[in-house]
Amino acid sequence: MQQKIQIYNTLTRKKEEFIPIIPKQLGLYVCGPTVYGDAHLGHARPAITFDLVFRYFKHLGYKVRYVRNITDVGHLSDEIAGEGEDKILKKAKIEQLEPMEVVHQYTESYHESMRTLNVLSPSIEPRATGHIIEQLQMIKEIVDKGYGYEANGNVYFDVLKYNQDYDYGKLSGRKVEDLFENTRQLEGQSEKKNSYDFALWKKASPEHIMRWPSEFSDGFPGWHMECSAMSMKYLGKKFDIHGGGMDLVFPHHEAEIAQSVAANGHDAAQYWMHNNMITIGGQKMGKSLGNFITLDEFFTGSHELLEKAYSPMTIRFFILQAQYRGTVDFSNEALQAAEKGYQRLMKGYETLLKLTATKEDTIEIDVAGLKQKCYDALNDDFNSPILIANLFDAVKTINSIAAGNISANENTLAALKELFDIFIFHILGFKPETELAKGADDKTASLIDLMCNMRIQAKENKDWGTADKIRNELTKLGVTIKDSKDGFEWEIN
Amino acid sequence: MQQKIQIYNTLTRKKEEFIPIIPKQLGLYVCGPTVYGDAHLGHARPAITFDLVFRYFKHLGYKVRYVRNITDVGHLSDEIAGEGEDKILKKAKIEQLEPMEVVHQYTESYHESMRTLNVLSPSIEPRATGHIIEQLQMIKEIVDKGYGYEANGNVYFDVLKYNQDYDYGKLSGRKVEDLFENTRQLEGQSEKKNSYDFALWKKASPEHIMRWPSEFSDGFPGWHMECSAMSMKYLGKKFDIHGGGMDLVFPHHEAEIAQSVAANGHDAAQYWMHNNMITIGGQKMGKSLGNFITLDEFFTGSHELLEKAYSPMTIRFFILQAQYRGTVDFSNEALQAAEKGYQRLMKGYETLLKLTATKEDTIEIDVAGLKQKCYDALNDDFNSPILIANLFDAVKTINSIAAGNISANENTLAALKELFDIFIFHILGFKPETELAKGADDKTASLIDLMCNMRIQAKENKDWGTADKIRNELTKLGVTIKDSKDGFEWEIN
Repeated sequence: MQQKIQIYNTLTRKKEEFIPIIPKQLGLYVCGPTVYGDAHLGHARPAITFDLVFRYFKHLGYKVRYVRNITDVGHLSDEIAGEGEDKILKKAKIEQLEPMEVVHQYTESYHESMRTLNVLSPSIEPRATGHIIEQLQMIKEIVDKGYGYEANGNVYFDVLKYNQDYDYGKLSGRKVEDLFENTRQLEGQSEKKNSYDFALWKKASPEHIMRWPSEFSDGFPGWHMECSAMSMKYLGKKFDIHGGGMDLVFPHHEAEIAQSVAANGHDAAQYWMHNNMITIGGQKMGKSLGNFITLDEFFTGSHELLEKAYSPMTIRFFILQAQYRGTVDFSNEALQAAEKGYQRLMKGYETLLKLTATKEDTIEIDVAGLKQKCYDALNDDFNSPILIANLFDAVKTINSIAAGNISANENTLAALKELFDIFIFHILGFKPETELAKGADDKTASLIDLMCNMRIQAKENKDWGTADKIRNELTKLGVTIKDSKDGFEWEIN
Repeated sequence: MQQKIQIYNTLTRKKEEFIPIIPKQLGLYVCGPTVYGDAHLGHARPAITFDLVFRYFKHLGYKVRYVRNITDVGHLSDEIAGEGEDKILKKAKIEQLEPMEVVHQYTESYHESMRTLNVLSPSIEPRATGHIIEQLQMIKEIVDKGYGYEANGNVYFDVLKYNQDYDYGKLSGRKVEDLFENTRQLEGQSEKKNSYDFALWKKASPEHIMRWPSEFSDGFPGWHMECSAMSMKYLGKKFDIHGGGMDLVFPHHEAEIAQSVAANGHDAAQYWMHNNMITIGGQKMGKSLGNFITLDEFFTGSHELLEKAYSPMTIRFFILQAQYRGTVDFSNEALQAAEKGYQRLMKGYETLLKLTATKEDTIEIDVAGLKQKCYDALNDDFNSPILIANLFDAVKTINSIAAGNISANENTLAALKELFDIFIFHILGFKPETELAKGADDKTASLIDLMCNMRIQAKENKDWGTADKIRNELTKLGVTIKDSKDGFEWEIN
């Protein structure tokens, strides 16, 4: 069935129906990480948000080209003015490595974290350093059209000139007049026509390692250039959706739009999607602010703010249980609620698999209606919390069947299973993960369950020798069994 | 202790003592894959060979910068003449993808295979498309020095001119005079001064997608350029070791040397190391020859030439049980022998962990001497089969202790454990993998062993109900138990 998707477009500040440029094809560009540290919770949010978008469009049969870049040069620590020290070079100095060693190490670490979170790999993952020529071509285009100027080997974007012909600030809602007051005076800024002009190309100081020759100077691109150049290279001058975190709206995406319009005469992206931030104590969680908790720290529980470890799927659920445009505030309570929610969903699925069909449904179970509600939630700007709420309704039905209050026939059970397979695994991207069995795969968990059940049976038969043997052998393997009122719990150390 | 390493240098055709340019530092460049298909056994050999080199130098305390490239452009299907169709573009056409989607897909697949084989990630993994500027800079340098010439937007290396000043063919032992006869006349070749001149830069035909602007033409680099340019960028104009497969000696590495010497006036690499080929029916296994078996096919057994699946560590053992300069011929018998060898080594380790120390050694067990023999094997041009033979001697000793024929004190056992930890895990890079438990991790395997043992006990107690229950429950989990004369065997489906 044809699904009509509404997307909140930051550019127009309203939800709009998504109409692809080419029917059943999607060009999607999302700003990826600057690779100078381990991925933290703040990185997980855009990755998971746009993973949902990617998965949903693929599910609908779109041919999707999803481009997510790796920023490995030119991202300066003072982002507003485009001045300051390159983050990767700074890290390389600290660790006494060649910058590309830093890039390689943290790109690998990012990929590893994404795999763990079950985030699919994009179609293309271009790197800024790998597209210097394309960036220089675009800079020349901008200069040739009169919207960029050179000063001492640096090239700046002429915001005022651009604003006379187009609309600088249309994405972020800022006005050029107001920018004057907000940009600080920084060293070396006097060569700019206006303090808010941003760098397209920077001349490298003699000690700067990452540098390339150009007609302007031996230097490196400004941070905003890469996304304009690389999205154009791989998705064309006009493509469907550009995504990223809300913190990138200004200056990064505003500058991207200005660059693309200056070079090509028109906008590149039709829809701009922005995920909101993860906050911690009300402040954005970010590497540059130093208040981040890495994903590995979540998975192992090794951070002073964490009461315990949280599994990758708990983190995924934590992020998807909020609509992507709302803030998500970090707290142990919220994470533990997410953990319970995820477990409830998975338990519902496990229960479903064990249900026995009856000949007839005893009450009407409208799985088709529920399925459409799930689609409706996604079609309404990817509203994952509503989708999850619908799935919880399905869990309630399943539990009623399991409790014998109602019963369901074979078709209904099959439809429920299909519903879960589509939405839980395929689109929301969860994967089974027995919560108590941290670090154990499915088979291991099932085997331990089996052993524990045999031990209970042995105890019922008063075969204490066997019961003790099982406990002891499992202990040797690092599995601790605890008796509980429901039967047993176990943990792998 | 200081280890003196002898390396067979293809350039001098003899073993030479390795002397690093900077003490205790190693710059290592190895030719990586052309990413247009899934990794096959032929890719595993250089990866594992140089993984051993990387691991050994790191073990010795060297600061190693290991650069292994990804070839994602310009590798043409007729390698000798540098003509033909770009392999990646051809694949992109077949799969109807943008070339960089092909590159991304197979780079990911390569990385996945390497992780499975426990091959460490290099320090830097540069891509050819990401270094067009660096390649163009080097081409200009070569042209400026008179060793390259332009013809219709193409740039060629002037082999004859170069050979007048330097020695073309010194790596491969070929003589320029002989090349005349061996190079075929191909279309478009008439613009070359000599048929064996190779392309540094190719003008792109109108339909060619992968192209970059340059002072010569809109085009793309010749295949040989990337390694010269990228090794220079990340390791300097002079570095320690350049490695790759023996099939790359000519023309790829010969051309690399010529390019570096033409541009810089001297050789780049001090030592050239080449691993020999994997053959199948006497012929090199290769993508271009179409006679390859992918690594995934080995791991799953899904290829008509395979009698069964072979685990990643069996493949690793299969490769390391030969010295890297000897050929390795594919056969099921050889793989099954490798499987047994690997299992013997791992069983030896497991046995060692269970040994109980006595107060005294009953015979002299010279672990220190054995350890030095292990180092000696590696120092003799990374002779891994001799190293493995020494470790098998240790296994024999362990088995004698386990059988009660001899006994060992605590220090001896600790020294044996250290020996295994260093050489088996750290340097040879094996990881535990219960052979029969394909796809199962250690814990799963131990749990299944435990269940099987309980079943045997149940049968001894004539408790047929329990014995059957265990078999049935395991069957449900996809585990098949087979009774054997020694007790049991099991397999995960």
